[in-house]
Amino acid sequence: MGKCSNNIFLLTGSYFSFPKKRSFMIDLERLSKEKSSLIDKELASVFGGNMPNLHDAIKYHLGTGGKRLRPLLSIATYEALGGMDNKILPFAAACELFHNWCLLHDDIMDGDRVRRDRPAVWVKYGLAHGINVGDYMSQKVFELIINSRNCGVDDKTVLKLVDAMVTASVKTAEGQAMDINMRSGSPKESDYMDMVMAKTGHYLTVPMVGAALVAGREEIIPKLVEFGSFIGPAFQIADDILDLTEGKGRGEIGRDIKEGKKSILIIHCLGKCTGKEKATLLKVLHKSPEETTDAEVTLVVSLLNKYDSLDYAKKRAEELKKKAYASIKKMPPELHETLKFFADYLVNRKK
Amino acid sequence: MGKCSNNIFLLTGSYFSFPKKRSFMIDLERLSKEKSSLIDKELASVFGGNMPNLHDAIKYHLGTGGKRLRPLLSIATYEALGGMDNKILPFAAACELFHNWCLLHDDIMDGDRVRRDRPAVWVKYGLAHGINVGDYMSQKVFELIINSRNCGVDDKTVLKLVDAMVTASVKTAEGQAMDINMRSGSPKESDYMDMVMAKTGHYLTVPMVGAALVAGREEIIPKLVEFGSFIGPAFQIADDILDLTEGKGRGEIGRDIKEGKKSILIIHCLGKCTGKEKATLLKVLHKSPEETTDAEVTLVVSLLNKYDSLDYAKKRAEELKKKAYASIKKMPPELHETLKFFADYLVNRKK
Repeated sequence: MGKCSNNIFLLTGSYFSFPKKRSFMIDLERLSKEKSSLIDKELASVFGGNMPNLHDAIKYHLGTGGKRLRPLLSIATYEALGGMDNKILPFAAACELFHNWCLLHDDIMDGDRVRRDRPAVWVKYGLAHGINVGDYMSQKVFELIINSRNCGVDDKTVLKLVDAMVTASVKTAEGQAMDINMRSGSPKESDYMDMVMAKTGHYLTVPMVGAALVAGREEIIPKLVEFGSFIGPAFQIADDILDLTEGKGRGEIGRDIKEGKKSILIIHCLGKCTGKEKATLLKVLHKSPEETTDAEVTLVVSLLNKYDSLDYAKKRAEELKKKAYASIKKMPPELHETLKFFADYLVNRKK
Repeated sequence: MGKCSNNIFLLTGSYFSFPKKRSFMIDLERLSKEKSSLIDKELASVFGGNMPNLHDAIKYHLGTGGKRLRPLLSIATYEALGGMDNKILPFAAACELFHNWCLLHDDIMDGDRVRRDRPAVWVKYGLAHGINVGDYMSQKVFELIINSRNCGVDDKTVLKLVDAMVTASVKTAEGQAMDINMRSGSPKESDYMDMVMAKTGHYLTVPMVGAALVAGREEIIPKLVEFGSFIGPAFQIADDILDLTEGKGRGEIGRDIKEGKKSILIIHCLGKCTGKEKATLLKVLHKSPEETTDAEVTLVVSLLNKYDSLDYAKKRAEELKKKAYASIKKMPPELHETLKFFADYLVNRKK
């Protein structure tokens, strides 16, 4: 079991700034710069081996970048709650690892060959190693959480952290099943909302839940879960939009269309278009990614534009953000600015 | 979280018998009959949903049978240590689930289309669901362990159970990486022994380790680990032999040859045969399962026969069993007969 990092970090407020236009904001870049090396050190503490096609594959995957958004959310929540030590670090790192395990297996499930503009692990190391590397990471998530003991987190709380992570990962897998199931049908928006809440909501919420547990503020958890039930879907809708605007580091714009994903844009469009257009749309979506031509992607995009589905998605994300803001008001004041910042960032990010 | 089963089972000794030839033996069939429904009930408590292509797939997979060997080993060890309640049940069920998750993902990694004489989950439900179902099971393992709290296991012990399971699953994934790596090379017997200890040893040991933890007999764990370091590899060698004699429920005899597995038989043969035969052997093994013909399997079997590789493997398994017997002598007397029985069964089983 790895030792807890000795770098004790204090709530210095150094990455909080007070610009003229707003009363408060977080400098995410600075926060990331300050904390990323601590998160990476924690991750490295459980991946010390040198087994070919395992440890090198993990380093490759984790080294492809990523925003470290979930651990930063966990750390920022913990510090906002008055946490002034490093007790949250192993759990924050576990959230990052959980996220990366999901991405790694998702790439295989979706047939995605590119991740963060580089070949996906299963493409570089083969399918068998790809699955095994993900399985290994899924277990190391819990090794990291157990390592919280080395930072002085008591056994009872560590067990609650394990429980919270299991709840999140179980819900995420249920959401993934719904997502795969939806690809072969013509789902309603309510199906989509159920799916994104399960698939994205819980694992955006668990970093905050862990922070509340380590900070000894268990009473806030139901409110954090409510907040997560709005920002999770809002984040996913923003993701759907990004696929058509900026791309998501998967080598192309509109990759979701090739994969036949029933994004909120597609579901909106399916509900508005003519019967003939619907048949065309579904025919393209139900083709395999390899069979779908760029011309067919363009055709789908033209239908999405015709029915203003992008605008609709943006409006839905904004509505959810407002609901998230409202739920923040029910929480202790020390959390308000931090959570507002993240709600805003998650919806309006450009990558 | 599921409730703990109310069926309290006592150490009645009902499945212990004293036949004339031996001083003591366990009636495994009777033990299995008595305990299987309790294990299944525990498993069912965490799979109550009805998500298509998820819960049905799990029921299908668990319903294909299996010997329930690991949970029975856990329960029998616990009872031999004086355990007279149901506290071990959730952990025993977790061991069974862990085993089944490994099998499910292994089938994808190995390209095995048949499991226990029925289509493998990934064949029946598709690759994406196959991976996701395994991921879901991997997390439910920990939900089961956490459920031990409902049976009166204290938090400190539950956390130790989580830790023990993580250690086992992490080692198993390392062993799996070694196994996949070995398929493209010409490994030595020491490589094989390292691989099977990692891949099979730990997850045959963890049911006993859990039993010692729940029974409050932590001091025995190092001895159980030593015992596992002999029966784990012995079990795997028995498995290698079964593939060529009885088959392993994967639809054919010699499936391991098609998959290019470097079994102990193959490694022995590679070390004995001529350079020309070695080249032939490796050529067949390095073909994909689909490309390997039955005639090529027959050719490999004839080489294994020529160099008495089956006999060699049997001798190695017997040697390891003797070492396991010797390690049992270092343990408290109440464990001797139970562990002897399992050591014998694991090596000499016919399926």
